[in-house]
Amino acid sequence: MNYVEVCFSPAEYPLYREHFELVVVIDVLRATSAICTALENGISKIKPVASVEDAKYWQDKGFIGAAERNGEIVEGFDLGNSPIAYIERAQELAGKTVVLTTTNGTKAIDIASEKETVVIGALNNLDALCDWLKLQDENILILGSGWKDKFNLEDTICAGAIADRLIDTGLFKADEDSTVAAKFIYRSARDNMFAFLRASSHRRRLRKLNLSEDVKYCLTPNNSTTIPILEDGFLVRLEDSKRSSSPTAAKQNLPVS
Amino acid sequence: MNYVEVCFSPAEYPLYREHFELVVVIDVLRATSAICTALENGISKIKPVASVEDAKYWQDKGFIGAAERNGEIVEGFDLGNSPIAYIERAQELAGKTVVLTTTNGTKAIDIASEKETVVIGALNNLDALCDWLKLQDENILILGSGWKDKFNLEDTICAGAIADRLIDTGLFKADEDSTVAAKFIYRSARDNMFAFLRASSHRRRLRKLNLSEDVKYCLTPNNSTTIPILEDGFLVRLEDSKRSSSPTAAKQNLPVS
Repeated sequence: MNYVEVCFSPAEYPLYREHFELVVVIDVLRATSAICTALENGISKIKPVASVEDAKYWQDKGFIGAAERNGEIVEGFDLGNSPIAYIERAQELAGKTVVLTTTNGTKAIDIASEKETVVIGALNNLDALCDWLKLQDENILILGSGWKDKFNLEDTICAGAIADRLIDTGLFKADEDSTVAAKFIYRSARDNMFAFLRASSHRRRLRKLNLSEDVKYCLTPNNSTTIPILEDGFLVRLEDSKRSSSPTAAKQNLPVS
Repeated sequence: MNYVEVCFSPAEYPLYREHFELVVVIDVLRATSAICTALENGISKIKPVASVEDAKYWQDKGFIGAAERNGEIVEGFDLGNSPIAYIERAQELAGKTVVLTTTNGTKAIDIASEKETVVIGALNNLDALCDWLKLQDENILILGSGWKDKFNLEDTICAGAIADRLIDTGLFKADEDSTVAAKFIYRSARDNMFAFLRASSHRRRLRKLNLSEDVKYCLTPNNSTTIPILEDGFLVRLEDSKRSSSPTAAKQNLPVS
């Protein structure tokens, strides 16, 4: 039986990383929700980078630049990590490559990128992602992006949802208390996510920035069927025809980035 | 209004430490439960040290040596962190000074010792500790010892119980998602702690070592009224007469260690 475990934030990743070659990175508010949405709405590829400097470098090379820090678009960019912005500008961005840096999410992707397979999770792609993960004969680590390396509620709820579904198949088991806690918090929150997250520190942060439409979108399960997967430094959409394959097979069949 | 926040484990302490001069260290299974019990049952002082080498050094100087690693007493010592052992040997140990090192708990005390006030929390002294904390006009950080720097359930439940009671007074508030989660897990677990902790990884570890009597003792709230406080490197019992004072006043009146 394979393991599925939850790591709350990048700060704890070194304690959990061993024995996992498949990592699911989660940043519900808002990076991984935006990534699912952007790829679902026609953007071709996303290059996640950890620093604003790297984003500027690739923007200068001709990529569409997207940068967010502390909930706001960074000066010198006209996109951040708002999923709704990627929907509204879908026509203009179709087929383009975006370079993206965010406060938490792209840093988590960066540290996980040492692993064989990195996929992107959000509440938005929950069912599609879990259906694919269930077929993978691998230990799976679910990595929350947290807020500046601290635990956060919304990533933990999403991680708990994924762990719960995988464990329910009987093909995965969990050994860590963090996984038990995430599953438990998810089960308690699932029927009224908004009420549960009223106390979330990050939601309060975004409310101040007038981003409640974005929050509502990010907390809506299954408004996307896209599974973003990291290939040679770019996030691309896992092709529908590869969804019953193992990650290795899927990779071999993907177009070279 | 003052803050009360929960930090899940020593690994995250650097992210939370700022703005707190009062830290409550928790290691329910079993270091802080043992510390409460030992001081309640007549041991005079406990010197918490992070390494086995330090424990040996002070044992050679004439202190009673106690050392635990991975749930077992370390070779060369005849005490570990079993609260029941401190009760059974109370007569022999009365008035003595013990040097103690454990896998998780004494490391957490060590990193918190930079702060003005460090007290010891456990389910065993929950009411007594909370009654005293409520009187302190300070920001309070509750630090779980975790398991080798990872999150654990039993420390989080205890931390959530303390945070819940302090917030209920209306004198304290919480801003961190970790505190919201700890409160929530505590409220869900409180009516049947044993069932809730069935899945706890540490409890499974201790079961293998045949320590279920100890676990039962550690999970029993309020079988102790002792509040251990760190004074000049030694944990001593906060005197009953000082319990209505601020920590500073309490310190000035304590006998010199």
